[in-house]
Amino acid sequence: MLTRLCQLSCKRFFAAYLPIAAVTGLGSVAINNFELRRIGLTVAFSEVQKLKTMASVEETVIVAEAAEAAPAPEAAPVEAAAAPKEKKERAPKEKKEKPKKEPKPEQGDGKKAAGGDAKGLGLKNGKKDNFGEWYSELVVASELISYYDVSGCYILRPWAYAMWEVVQAWFDKRIKQLGVQNSYFPLFITEDVLNTEKDHVEGFAPEVAWVTKCGNTTMEKPIAIRPTSETVMYPYFAQWIRSHRDLPLRLNQWTNVVRWEFKYPTPFIRSREFLWQEGHTAFATQEEAEREVLDILELYRGVYEDLLAVPVTKGKKSKKEQFAGAFYTTTVEAYIPETGRGIQGATSHCLGQNFSKMFNIQFEDDDRQKQYAWQNSWGLTTRSLGVMIMTHADDKGLVLPPRMAPKQVVIIPIPKANTAPEMVQAMMDKVAELKEALEKQDVRVVTDTRNNYTPGWKYNHWELKGLPLRMELGPKDMDNGVVVLARRDTGAKETVAWADVAARVPVLLETIQADMFAAAKARTATCTEVCHSFEEFMTALNNKHMALTPWADEEAIEEEVKKKSTTPDAMGAKTLCLPFEAPELPEGTKCFYSGKPAKNWALWGRSY
Amino acid sequence: MLTRLCQLSCKRFFAAYLPIAAVTGLGSVAINNFELRRIGLTVAFSEVQKLKTMASVEETVIVAEAAEAAPAPEAAPVEAAAAPKEKKERAPKEKKEKPKKEPKPEQGDGKKAAGGDAKGLGLKNGKKDNFGEWYSELVVASELISYYDVSGCYILRPWAYAMWEVVQAWFDKRIKQLGVQNSYFPLFITEDVLNTEKDHVEGFAPEVAWVTKCGNTTMEKPIAIRPTSETVMYPYFAQWIRSHRDLPLRLNQWTNVVRWEFKYPTPFIRSREFLWQEGHTAFATQEEAEREVLDILELYRGVYEDLLAVPVTKGKKSKKEQFAGAFYTTTVEAYIPETGRGIQGATSHCLGQNFSKMFNIQFEDDDRQKQYAWQNSWGLTTRSLGVMIMTHADDKGLVLPPRMAPKQVVIIPIPKANTAPEMVQAMMDKVAELKEALEKQDVRVVTDTRNNYTPGWKYNHWELKGLPLRMELGPKDMDNGVVVLARRDTGAKETVAWADVAARVPVLLETIQADMFAAAKARTATCTEVCHSFEEFMTALNNKHMALTPWADEEAIEEEVKKKSTTPDAMGAKTLCLPFEAPELPEGTKCFYSGKPAKNWALWGRSY
Repeated sequence: MLTRLCQLSCKRFFAAYLPIAAVTGLGSVAINNFELRRIGLTVAFSEVQKLKTMASVEETVIVAEAAEAAPAPEAAPVEAAAAPKEKKERAPKEKKEKPKKEPKPEQGDGKKAAGGDAKGLGLKNGKKDNFGEWYSELVVASELISYYDVSGCYILRPWAYAMWEVVQAWFDKRIKQLGVQNSYFPLFITEDVLNTEKDHVEGFAPEVAWVTKCGNTTMEKPIAIRPTSETVMYPYFAQWIRSHRDLPLRLNQWTNVVRWEFKYPTPFIRSREFLWQEGHTAFATQEEAEREVLDILELYRGVYEDLLAVPVTKGKKSKKEQFAGAFYTTTVEAYIPETGRGIQGATSHCLGQNFSKMFNIQFEDDDRQKQYAWQNSWGLTTRSLGVMIMTHADDKGLVLPPRMAPKQVVIIPIPKANTAPEMVQAMMDKVAELKEALEKQDVRVVTDTRNNYTPGWKYNHWELKGLPLRMELGPKDMDNGVVVLARRDTGAKETVAWADVAARVPVLLETIQADMFAAAKARTATCTEVCHSFEEFMTALNNKHMALTPWADEEAIEEEVKKKSTTPDAMGAKTLCLPFEAPELPEGTKCFYSGKPAKNWALWGRSY
Repeated sequence: MLTRLCQLSCKRFFAAYLPIAAVTGLGSVAINNFELRRIGLTVAFSEVQKLKTMASVEETVIVAEAAEAAPAPEAAPVEAAAAPKEKKERAPKEKKEKPKKEPKPEQGDGKKAAGGDAKGLGLKNGKKDNFGEWYSELVVASELISYYDVSGCYILRPWAYAMWEVVQAWFDKRIKQLGVQNSYFPLFITEDVLNTEKDHVEGFAPEVAWVTKCGNTTMEKPIAIRPTSETVMYPYFAQWIRSHRDLPLRLNQWTNVVRWEFKYPTPFIRSREFLWQEGHTAFATQEEAEREVLDILELYRGVYEDLLAVPVTKGKKSKKEQFAGAFYTTTVEAYIPETGRGIQGATSHCLGQNFSKMFNIQFEDDDRQKQYAWQNSWGLTTRSLGVMIMTHADDKGLVLPPRMAPKQVVIIPIPKANTAPEMVQAMMDKVAELKEALEKQDVRVVTDTRNNYTPGWKYNHWELKGLPLRMELGPKDMDNGVVVLARRDTGAKETVAWADVAARVPVLLETIQADMFAAAKARTATCTEVCHSFEEFMTALNNKHMALTPWADEEAIEEEVKKKSTTPDAMGAKTLCLPFEAPELPEGTKCFYSGKPAKNWALWGRSY
């Protein structure tokens, strides 16, 4: 295949391929006799994408799976091709392309697939058996993500972005009710401003991307791209705040930020550019600031539990794990049972007066005395979508909580081969009528009346996309004046009379939302073990569980536990948080590790 | 003053100041004996901001105007200080700070100012006399903008950002109704992808910012920050589009982009980072693509005329002025009478098949033939807010069209010194009641019941902020059961019975919206002259008017006209657009410049 491609477009290929490899920074690439040796996952992704871009459609022989498919039928279902075609992009451990002769990019015959088990459309990897590859495959196949040719950056396709818009609308409305105002601060930071708060800059410096050139001109001083905006904003807080009447100052912005991490990137979960909101506020008193920290944390809980149907533990971060420059950090922590790893959901920081002292944010109080402001910052990122996907999706694809689903119901008419044309028309009319009735109830509906796909293929397609409900309408249903509703989360079906559909569906959607949350919460609860010794602790970890332990709250212990819990197969554990809701801690309880008097409970786990 | 500052914090001063000067790229900075020689506007801004940041409040003696104010009263109105304090930041031609002893940052005694002409709060520069400085002063004083210490970047404060949210909500809803989906593509572009379309990259290359370092690591290949996203997106369009069933593909994103221009930056109008939406779409046929170009242009007209109350001329750009890489560009062009300059409002480009051929975006048509897709791209930026401000604002401050105003009505109670406490309370209750009644009508209301400001100071404050309506409630009004409404745009007042307020205000707001648009439209019409000779053309230009001329539509003519119309005081003129609505062009009409047969009408002007 490569030989062929290079014959076609040899110069372009080398021109396009090599820089990508360089950009990833993961290693060099050897090209011998047009044989390509890949140096890790990211290069592989880029390479495939690049080749596809360069090759015309008929030359996309690189898609090895395509060769396995039957030749495309007259009306080739294009979506069917999409999943396998892109699978290649995310299969991280495949060693070698297997080009075949004359494969077609279109594949996956809907007709063949009738009956529900549409081959070629499902996921190749299982959630339990191969979580990492399952996830990578899923986010691409369900059209949430495309891998991008700058390593660690991803395209949020409309199906993903629409979900981010749901989160934005929900959260934005609520912070505005609290009195927070939106604004926009620049992407760039001068080096000196970035360096103002020492702890802060130490936390971020290794990941900062620097602009040093504009056009052909080298800048005299490089400019940083914001990894977060404390240092962007606070010089201006210092200007704007003079008197206690200027407080509270509560700003938020919805932006992109860049953290050039060299850890393994994962779509949504860890990317070099990501989208978030960052709130930055200043108060006259500690009390007001601390109240806001918890108000915002409660909104973050709301995003996770009430929208994403993901249970979270609220708590405080240990000193070691808190935000660089913070007074303290509060967090909502989620957990992925299949990997046994905790994951930080969102953080609300009390910055205390650390930054106000560095940036000179002072106000005159009632008695005309100068005081340093109390500050907070808080952020929620597109990572939240990744946690939702990992929590709910299954081997068939996404499973979206109804409140998050860009489309909640798909209506599929199911004419048989011998259904009379008038009956087909009546079905189509009924589909349109039901759609309209549901939309009046603010249900987000899509209809799939395409006649070049089988019902089975459609079922699989919409299951992959994660729609909470499927509504089927066949000839018998037409006779009986009913539809069949199938739940994505449980597979349960129910028959509902047409007249009841508009009332039943919204209720059922809320039931699904509640059931999905309850199921996830039960799973998390099962996976949290109270441990009083390091032995119990290690058993819990090795069971892929989290450990809740009495703890002496010392950084040295945390570091030692991390080291000792590191195994050849697994990273060390760290504290996820000191949970706000924890068992009682009777006088004399000992730290699970050090045997010293325990100061609090800590939730530990391996983590993302 | 500098001496004093340096004594206080000499090391920090040098550390902080020098790099900024370097960053601006405008020149070097000489510091001798603590005397600072400024090398142009931007450095001056940065320097003042920086010094203010470093100095504690009492040390901000750099604010020369503050010295002119009376000592702050007991309850010093802080907002009063904001305008003069920040004025310094934008005064572009001041040669020297004039430090005075013991100035206070707080100033502007509300009580002194009673009667309406609150000294110290108004603008120092007039719109007619000194447009550039008036604008710079206005955007800071009205709290839309803060200058930022990276040259050409600005902070959009909540009052400005809320208006951008109005534009976003209006436009986003309408493109979604057209079938456009939102998405998010990365900030970064590899060099090779950026270079794919030759004309395009030539248009943008000089302004591209490059990331070359991450942490302490130098990247093997620099990565560009998007100046626009054609080259970011289209490799993926090529992947996603296989068949005519994948078309149309219509994506949009709301993002920041960076164009490191070295022209004179102006808040909103020309900044190195700005916010915009960019739509990118692909169609099977030219006809569909061209229909969308005009659909979007009509929405852009709607943003300008129906929201911003700014009249625009729809038309096509000349070849010379069209988007780099486009088949053709359509535009809405606005005009600023005071400067006599046209300004591009928003552009909707038909890219034809230029990019689809370079990026290989092909689909299989009904007959299974490969075809290149027809593409468009279209963008609207935060510049639109600047055009609105320039069009409507006056010497007292902003004048916001009601549909754009984050707050539309301010209610101000006006107790007299001798008003009885019960009456004051009754007034406050009535204010709250009126607010509630208006909010039920979706009117955006703010009340100003602060007792440490005089009514006159408040009038000026809210006039500066541009609120369309002020509602006054004094003791006599309480007796008569009425309020007085004062229009910001005309100053006209009317008395309205309490019972009629909820009905009258929404109507009046719409009247103001319509009147503001009509007034602006009349001004623009007056300033457009039909010219048949170059002499008439130059007369029009020198009158600060636009010229509408018959034209032979040749690039060489455009270049020559630009050169010949350049004077020591004014830039040369260019075509703003070839208007869609123009007078008839009878056979034999001659080009105003070349005398050749005219092909079309062109609208010319000096421009932003």
